[in-house]
Amino acid sequence: MARTVAYLGPHGTYCEETVLSIYGDQPDVSLKPFSTIDEAIRAVAGGEVDESIVPVENSLEGSVNVTLDTIAHDVNLYITKEIILPVRHNLLANKGSSDVDAIVSHPQALAQCRKTLGKLYPQAKLIPVESTAAAARKVADGEGRLAAVGSLKAAEHYGLTVIAAGIQDNATNSTRFIGLERQPLTDATGKCKTTLVCQINGAQPGSLYYLLGELAQRSVNLTRIESRPARTGLGMYIFFLDIEGSITEPNIADAVNAVKEKSLWFKNFGSYPSFQITK
Amino acid sequence: MARTVAYLGPHGTYCEETVLSIYGDQPDVSLKPFSTIDEAIRAVAGGEVDESIVPVENSLEGSVNVTLDTIAHDVNLYITKEIILPVRHNLLANKGSSDVDAIVSHPQALAQCRKTLGKLYPQAKLIPVESTAAAARKVADGEGRLAAVGSLKAAEHYGLTVIAAGIQDNATNSTRFIGLERQPLTDATGKCKTTLVCQINGAQPGSLYYLLGELAQRSVNLTRIESRPARTGLGMYIFFLDIEGSITEPNIADAVNAVKEKSLWFKNFGSYPSFQITK
Repeated sequence: MARTVAYLGPHGTYCEETVLSIYGDQPDVSLKPFSTIDEAIRAVAGGEVDESIVPVENSLEGSVNVTLDTIAHDVNLYITKEIILPVRHNLLANKGSSDVDAIVSHPQALAQCRKTLGKLYPQAKLIPVESTAAAARKVADGEGRLAAVGSLKAAEHYGLTVIAAGIQDNATNSTRFIGLERQPLTDATGKCKTTLVCQINGAQPGSLYYLLGELAQRSVNLTRIESRPARTGLGMYIFFLDIEGSITEPNIADAVNAVKEKSLWFKNFGSYPSFQITK
Repeated sequence: MARTVAYLGPHGTYCEETVLSIYGDQPDVSLKPFSTIDEAIRAVAGGEVDESIVPVENSLEGSVNVTLDTIAHDVNLYITKEIILPVRHNLLANKGSSDVDAIVSHPQALAQCRKTLGKLYPQAKLIPVESTAAAARKVADGEGRLAAVGSLKAAEHYGLTVIAAGIQDNATNSTRFIGLERQPLTDATGKCKTTLVCQINGAQPGSLYYLLGELAQRSVNLTRIESRPARTGLGMYIFFLDIEGSITEPNIADAVNAVKEKSLWFKNFGSYPSFQITK
């Protein structure tokens, strides 16, 4: 059955690289780039596409807040896969230009290379744009002494040369992407994760402790906890909990129910397999 | 004694408004604007100024990651106060212009008004710049059909008019700022908070649960927990813990020691008073 998958474009983004590694060899899947994460997520929520693959976390920069906030507050979707991509940033410029007055890229990519760029080009101004690919396009279009932080795919696509390779500040930089669909998987087995989001009574001392106790008592491993504003005032939070295992396992199902019972507000994004891209 | 306080400038930022509300009537305090949070923090770490006041959290957008990451990883400073400012955003333009093709502001300010701007100016492009004040200056300088999201102070300073007032998506929007100094307060009493950051053994199930147990068992209230990447790989985190009370209270001192003992890595940012600005 033909299937359309949305992602954060344009051509040459790390998100495109991730989507191609999952769906690139499937002729019945058509890929559709969107210019913002928000639009890519809304496209699947509104039925325009079957799935949307967007970044959710980077090992240096942390959560991609717009992804967490949109899935918590604005749409009703489920996580059906996670894909981990090792990230290698490069500094890209037009052929023959090595003087750099300004460096453009997605704010998270700039942040991931901040120290290295500060050493290589201490005078260069860092200018945020929508995506790493948009940055490469800007360099290809422009006449100024501009460089972009981006992937080798972006260099290739926009005809740029690599003037510095592997410029990320940390060797172990990875980005985690999630696939979002309108229905949850019902049969996630093997190496799985389950993601919940909940709000608890923060005014009650120890409320987070007792909530996490429901997991610990059942030997359920919490791989990540992330707080985001509840949007009802300073000091009010929602918590995203990633746990190891699938809802098809009895102790996980039991723990998820216990968390739900202790929460003022709760949402289960479902259980899903995890993929690691190697390169 | 004369004292110099750094803040996130330029003139007209919410950070300036906050600093003025604390130090505006003290003639022996001179204020020094910096163009990035990172530079403002490094100025106090390097001894160029006595204190730096920077944003750390907003009720809609969550943590200011550069602040948390810089104080955890890059400098050795203490938190000596927190100041909570109610935030009211306005759309600012040159006199006589009401058509808007693009809206500029700090990325967090744009995010805080995203829904309202989407309704008012669905066609306008949102362009991120370094600060709300830099956005106002850009509008004042430019000739295009540009508007800025910013404060009334910025409108006044750059001679702009308010074309839409109170455009933040949520009525209860506040930003929390912290003061950073090279030495901790030793006598913080009254309504205080204490901030810790630690890394625990995430591979051990329940490790966060047992850590929070040290607080819950002593009836210490956790007002905020925030995870940030440990920068040693995906899935490795450090946790910022804000707790109610001062290290001068025996049960707080005891809880802080217990957290330290359970941590692989630990830092105490000190105990400090909390100020709420009313307007």
